[in-house]
Amino acid sequence: MKKLDPKISNKNIKWHNLTVDREKLEQMRGHKGMVLWFTGLSGSGKSTLANALNDSLHSKGLSTYILDGDNIRHGLCKDLGFSDKDREENIRRIGEVANLFMNAGIITITAFVSPFQIDREKVRNIIGDDFIEVYCSANLDVCEERDTKGLYKKARLGEIKDFTGISSPYEAPLNPEIVVDTGSLNLDEAVEKILTFLIDRGFINHKYS
Amino acid sequence: MKKLDPKISNKNIKWHNLTVDREKLEQMRGHKGMVLWFTGLSGSGKSTLANALNDSLHSKGLSTYILDGDNIRHGLCKDLGFSDKDREENIRRIGEVANLFMNAGIITITAFVSPFQIDREKVRNIIGDDFIEVYCSANLDVCEERDTKGLYKKARLGEIKDFTGISSPYEAPLNPEIVVDTGSLNLDEAVEKILTFLIDRGFINHKYS
Repeated sequence: MKKLDPKISNKNIKWHNLTVDREKLEQMRGHKGMVLWFTGLSGSGKSTLANALNDSLHSKGLSTYILDGDNIRHGLCKDLGFSDKDREENIRRIGEVANLFMNAGIITITAFVSPFQIDREKVRNIIGDDFIEVYCSANLDVCEERDTKGLYKKARLGEIKDFTGISSPYEAPLNPEIVVDTGSLNLDEAVEKILTFLIDRGFINHKYS
Repeated sequence: MKKLDPKISNKNIKWHNLTVDREKLEQMRGHKGMVLWFTGLSGSGKSTLANALNDSLHSKGLSTYILDGDNIRHGLCKDLGFSDKDREENIRRIGEVANLFMNAGIITITAFVSPFQIDREKVRNIIGDDFIEVYCSANLDVCEERDTKGLYKKARLGEIKDFTGISSPYEAPLNPEIVVDTGSLNLDEAVEKILTFLIDRGFINHKYS
């Protein structure tokens, strides 16, 4: 019987290090953990596509989780606004949480505008090889025409400050793993493009095609 | 085929809400998501016990994840120190992340000193009914005698400021779900006590006993 006393604390620490790690959790789930990082303008279809992909992967039995404005901005990052500094901290925290989920062996999907190249690069450095940047490339005209949440109208009227694409810049990814033209592809085609990438690059097994 | 255009955006939003939620993720994993929140002095055996519990649950096929100093203090909360204000923010963020993991259907185990009652109560309010506070009740003498990391010695010498139990208070839980006397129980007994609680209260199925 192991005793919680100083004499065997070293044993416990060693045993602690040997316990359930990322590899064991991935074995349990039957697939790798990874981070699919969606980026693009508001209205570019990030959330819709992220959810469609999530639904598709889940229906195949893979273990997935989405981080998006709904579960982050009202919780972990509710103390942050939309200044450059707060956006930077917002993306940093999301990157760190995505890293935890990946280490839990989960296919982690994030859907945030994440407009700045340097912030996304920092996340890439946290995550490492299993960071997959997915650029939803619908251009500003298309996104503003859609204006699904009425945010562009408010931004044009000056009712929202620092709105990406209007009063704050969007820096398109330089070398994203996947570009999805959400201005022209339909949803099924967009999901298929990402699935094909994941299978072709060995992120998920071909049996999931 | 669903089209990413404004006309069907309302459909997408509705469909978005219907997609993979906590209930579906719990069904997939075969058990509820919950948060087991370990609290106690440094050296009280939180991490050792949390890891032993994690190992036990994992070996039974349950989906678990540990949040502790190793994966939080160097990542999500690396901008925070040990002042009262920073400790409060540290616990808030951990509570929010634990909530996300719980919503992913995972048995989430946290191991932090978390010395202040009010901060733990705030986490309880975030998590709701599936918050299980586990008080590792070894007293200060026992913990300081163990001093597994040599921190008490440094704190007594004034080399560490705001050290809980020495130069910063520890507020014991008022109504913890579980009290584990880590000063007298051995590790197997402590794990067994928690497992019994989880089964008796219906948090996990009795088939896991």
